[in-house]
Amino acid sequence: MTKNKVNISFRIWFYTGNEKFLGKGRVELLERIDKTGSISSAAKGMKMSYRQAWQMVNEMNERASEIVVEKSLGGKGGGGATITKAGEKAIQQFHEFEKKVAQFIADESKNLNF
Amino acid sequence: MTKNKVNISFRIWFYTGNEKFLGKGRVELLERIDKTGSISSAAKGMKMSYRQAWQMVNEMNERASEIVVEKSLGGKGGGGATITKAGEKAIQQFHEFEKKVAQFIADESKNLNF
Repeated sequence: MTKNKVNISFRIWFYTGNEKFLGKGRVELLERIDKTGSISSAAKGMKMSYRQAWQMVNEMNERASEIVVEKSLGGKGGGGATITKAGEKAIQQFHEFEKKVAQFIADESKNLNF
Repeated sequence: MTKNKVNISFRIWFYTGNEKFLGKGRVELLERIDKTGSISSAAKGMKMSYRQAWQMVNEMNERASEIVVEKSLGGKGGGGATITKAGEKAIQQFHEFEKKVAQFIADESKNLNF
Protein backbone atom coordinates (compact mmCIF):
# COMPACT_ATOMS: atom_id res chain seq x y z
CA MET A 1 0.00 0.00 0.00
CA THR A 2 1.30 3.44 -0.87
CA LYS A 3 2.10 5.47 2.20
CA ASN A 4 1.23 9.13 2.52
CA LYS A 5 4.10 11.51 2.99
CA VAL A 6 3.75 13.39 6.25
CA ASN A 7 4.39 17.11 6.50
CA ILE A 8 4.82 18.69 9.88
CA SER A 9 3.81 22.17 10.89
CA PHE A 10 4.67 23.81 14.19
CA ARG A 11 4.33 26.92 16.29
CA ILE A 12 6.58 28.20 19.03
CA TRP A 13 6.06 30.64 21.88
CA PHE A 14 8.66 32.44 23.98
CA TYR A 15 7.90 32.65 27.69
CA THR A 16 9.62 34.64 30.39
CA GLY A 17 9.04 32.45 33.41
CA ASN A 18 5.44 31.27 33.13
CA GLU A 19 4.21 34.23 31.15
CA LYS A 20 3.84 34.34 27.41
CA PHE A 21 6.20 36.90 26.00
CA LEU A 22 6.19 36.37 22.23
CA GLY A 23 4.38 34.30 19.63
CA LYS A 24 3.82 34.59 15.91
CA GLY A 25 0.98 37.13 16.38
CA ARG A 26 2.90 39.36 18.76
CA VAL A 27 5.92 39.36 16.48
CA GLU A 28 3.66 40.45 13.63
CA LEU A 29 2.26 43.21 15.84
CA LEU A 30 5.77 44.47 16.65
CA GLU A 31 6.76 44.38 13.00
CA ARG A 32 3.68 46.36 12.04
CA ILE A 33 4.38 48.92 14.77
CA ASP A 34 7.92 49.21 13.42
CA LYS A 35 6.61 49.79 9.90
CA THR A 36 3.80 52.23 10.74
CA GLY A 37 5.13 53.92 13.87
CA SER A 38 1.72 53.47 15.43
CA ILE A 39 0.04 50.89 17.66
CA SER A 40 -3.33 51.92 16.28
CA SER A 41 -2.33 51.35 12.62
CA ALA A 42 -0.65 48.08 13.50
CA ALA A 43 -3.79 46.89 15.30
CA LYS A 44 -6.01 47.84 12.35
CA GLY A 45 -3.79 45.92 9.95
CA MET A 46 -4.32 42.79 12.05
CA LYS A 47 -8.04 43.34 12.63
CA MET A 48 -7.32 43.60 16.32
CA SER A 49 -8.82 46.20 18.63
CA TYR A 50 -6.58 49.05 19.71
CA ARG A 51 -7.25 48.07 23.29
CA GLN A 52 -6.05 44.52 22.71
CA ALA A 53 -2.90 45.65 20.88
CA TRP A 54 -2.13 48.18 23.60
CA GLN A 55 -2.52 45.50 26.24
CA MET A 56 -0.21 43.13 24.36
CA VAL A 57 2.42 45.85 24.08
CA ASN A 58 2.17 46.55 27.81
CA GLU A 59 2.51 42.87 28.62
CA MET A 60 5.57 42.50 26.43
CA ASN A 61 7.15 45.59 27.95
CA GLU A 62 6.52 44.28 31.45
CA ARG A 63 7.81 40.80 30.72
CA ALA A 64 11.05 41.70 28.95
CA SER A 65 13.99 42.97 30.98
CA GLU A 66 14.02 46.07 28.74
CA ILE A 67 10.93 47.50 27.03
CA VAL A 68 10.37 46.44 23.43
CA VAL A 69 8.07 49.31 22.38
CA GLU A 70 8.57 52.95 23.30
CA LYS A 71 5.38 54.97 23.31
CA SER A 72 5.39 58.71 22.81
CA LEU A 73 2.18 60.31 23.98
CA GLY A 74 0.41 63.48 22.89
CA GLY A 75 1.51 66.09 20.38
CA LYS A 76 -0.27 66.97 17.17
CA GLY A 77 -1.85 63.89 15.61
CA GLY A 78 -1.56 61.82 18.79
CA GLY A 79 1.26 59.64 20.04
CA GLY A 80 3.52 57.32 18.11
CA ALA A 81 5.36 54.13 18.94
CA THR A 82 8.79 52.82 18.05
CA ILE A 83 10.48 49.47 18.48
CA THR A 84 13.50 49.61 20.79
CA LYS A 85 16.81 47.85 20.17
CA ALA A 86 15.67 45.19 22.65
CA GLY A 87 12.48 44.80 20.63
CA GLU A 88 14.42 44.41 17.39
CA LYS A 89 16.58 41.78 19.02
CA ALA A 90 13.53 39.89 20.29
CA ILE A 91 11.95 39.85 16.82
CA GLN A 92 15.19 38.67 15.26
CA GLN A 93 15.71 35.92 17.84
CA PHE A 94 12.17 34.67 17.34
CA HIS A 95 12.62 34.39 13.57
CA GLU A 96 16.02 32.75 13.93
CA PHE A 97 14.63 30.23 16.38
CA GLU A 98 11.69 29.48 14.11
CA LYS A 99 14.11 28.83 11.25
CA LYS A 100 16.21 26.46 13.34
CA VAL A 101 13.16 24.48 14.42
CA ALA A 102 11.84 24.39 10.85
CA GLN A 103 15.16 23.01 9.61
CA PHE A 104 15.29 20.40 12.38
CA ILE A 105 11.73 19.28 11.69
CA ALA A 106 12.34 19.10 7.94
CA ASP A 107 15.42 16.92 8.51
CA GLU A 108 13.76 14.67 11.06
CA SER A 109 10.51 14.18 9.19
CA LYS A 110 12.01 12.82 5.97
CA ASN A 111 11.25 9.25 6.87
CA LEU A 112 7.83 9.64 8.43
CA ASN A 113 4.84 8.24 6.60
CA PHE A 114 1.42 6.87 7.39
CA MET B 1 20.36 44.69 34.00
CA THR B 2 19.30 41.17 34.84
CA LYS B 3 17.99 39.34 31.83
CA ASN B 4 14.95 37.13 31.98
CA LYS B 5 15.45 33.49 31.11
CA VAL B 6 13.33 32.50 28.12
CA ASN B 7 11.37 29.27 28.04
CA ILE B 8 9.98 28.02 24.78
CA SER B 9 6.80 26.07 24.26
CA PHE B 10 5.73 24.53 21.00
CA ARG B 11 3.06 22.52 19.24
CA ILE B 12 3.35 20.31 16.21
CA TRP B 13 0.83 19.00 13.70
CA PHE B 14 1.17 16.12 11.26
CA TYR B 15 -0.28 16.73 7.81
CA THR B 16 -0.84 14.31 4.96
CA GLY B 17 -0.47 16.61 1.97
CA ASN B 18 -2.30 19.80 2.89
CA GLU B 19 -4.71 18.16 5.29
CA LYS B 20 -4.31 18.02 9.03
CA PHE B 21 -3.91 14.44 10.12
CA LEU B 22 -2.81 14.56 13.75
CA GLY B 23 -2.30 17.10 16.51
CA LYS B 24 -2.15 16.96 20.27
CA GLY B 25 -5.95 16.87 20.58
CA ARG B 26 -6.45 14.10 18.04
CA VAL B 27 -3.74 12.02 19.66
CA GLU B 28 -5.54 12.41 22.97
CA LEU B 29 -8.79 11.35 21.31
CA LEU B 30 -7.15 8.21 19.89
CA GLU B 31 -5.63 7.36 23.25
CA ARG B 32 -8.98 7.74 24.96
CA ILE B 33 -10.66 5.55 22.34
CA ASP B 34 -7.95 2.97 22.96
CA LYS B 35 -8.58 3.11 26.71
CA THR B 36 -12.37 3.11 26.66
CA GLY B 37 -13.10 1.18 23.44
CA SER B 38 -15.67 3.83 22.58
CA ILE B 39 -15.70 7.04 20.56
CA SER B 40 -18.58 8.31 22.68
CA SER B 41 -16.74 7.84 26.00
CA ALA B 42 -13.57 9.32 24.54
CA ALA B 43 -15.51 12.38 23.35
CA LYS B 44 -17.15 12.86 26.75
CA GLY B 45 -13.78 12.71 28.48
CA MET B 46 -12.61 15.60 26.33
CA LYS B 47 -15.82 17.62 26.56
CA MET B 48 -16.21 17.23 22.84
CA SER B 49 -19.45 16.39 21.07
CA TYR B 50 -19.85 12.84 19.77
CA ARG B 51 -20.45 14.29 16.33
CA GLN B 52 -17.17 16.18 16.40
CA ALA B 53 -15.20 13.17 17.62
CA TRP B 54 -16.80 10.94 14.99
CA GLN B 55 -15.90 13.47 12.30
CA MET B 56 -12.29 13.64 13.51
CA VAL B 57 -12.04 9.87 13.42
CA ASN B 58 -13.41 9.79 9.88
CA GLU B 59 -10.97 12.44 8.76
CA MET B 60 -8.03 10.59 10.25
CA ASN B 61 -9.15 7.34 8.66
CA GLU B 62 -9.47 9.01 5.27
CA ARG B 63 -6.14 10.78 5.47
CA ALA B 64 -3.97 7.90 6.60
CA SER B 65 -3.00 5.20 4.13
CA GLU B 66 -4.50 2.63 6.55
CA ILE B 67 -7.36 3.39 8.93
CA VAL B 68 -6.39 4.27 12.49
CA VAL B 69 -9.71 3.47 14.18
CA GLU B 70 -11.84 0.44 13.46
CA LYS B 71 -15.52 0.95 14.25
CA SER B 72 -17.81 -1.96 15.01
CA LEU B 73 -21.45 -1.06 14.65
CA GLY B 74 -24.59 -2.39 16.32
CA GLY B 75 -24.93 -5.28 18.76
CA LYS B 76 -26.20 -5.00 22.30
CA GLY B 77 -25.04 -1.74 23.90
CA GLY B 78 -24.11 -0.14 20.58
CA GLY B 79 -20.89 -0.21 18.64
CA GLY B 80 -17.34 -0.05 19.88
CA ALA B 81 -14.11 1.25 18.47
CA THR B 82 -10.55 0.01 18.54
CA ILE B 83 -7.25 1.51 17.52
CA THR B 84 -5.55 -0.35 14.67
CA LYS B 85 -1.85 -1.16 14.46
CA ALA B 86 -1.50 1.79 12.06
CA GLY B 87 -3.21 3.97 14.66
CA GLU B 88 -0.86 2.79 17.40
CA LYS B 89 2.09 3.55 15.18
CA ALA B 90 0.78 7.03 14.41
CA ILE B 91 0.34 7.82 18.12
CA GLN B 92 3.81 6.52 18.89
CA GLN B 93 5.43 8.49 16.06
CA PHE B 94 3.70 11.66 17.19
CA HIS B 95 4.99 11.31 20.75
CA GLU B 96 8.48 10.43 19.57
CA PHE B 97 8.56 13.41 17.28
CA GLU B 98 7.33 15.70 20.05
CA LYS B 99 10.12 14.44 22.30
CA LYS B 100 12.77 15.06 19.65
CA VAL B 101 11.54 18.60 19.07
CA ALA B 102 11.35 19.24 22.83
CA GLN B 103 14.95 18.09 23.25
CA PHE B 104 16.14 20.20 20.33
CA ILE B 105 14.36 23.28 21.65
CA ALA B 106 15.70 22.75 25.16
CA ASP B 107 19.25 22.50 23.82
CA GLU B 108 18.94 25.49 21.49
CA SER B 109 17.20 27.80 23.95
CA LYS B 110 19.84 27.65 26.67
CA ASN B 111 21.41 30.93 25.69
CA LEU B 112 18.31 32.93 24.90
CA ASN B 113 17.36 35.79 27.18
CA PHE B 114 15.59 39.10 27.02
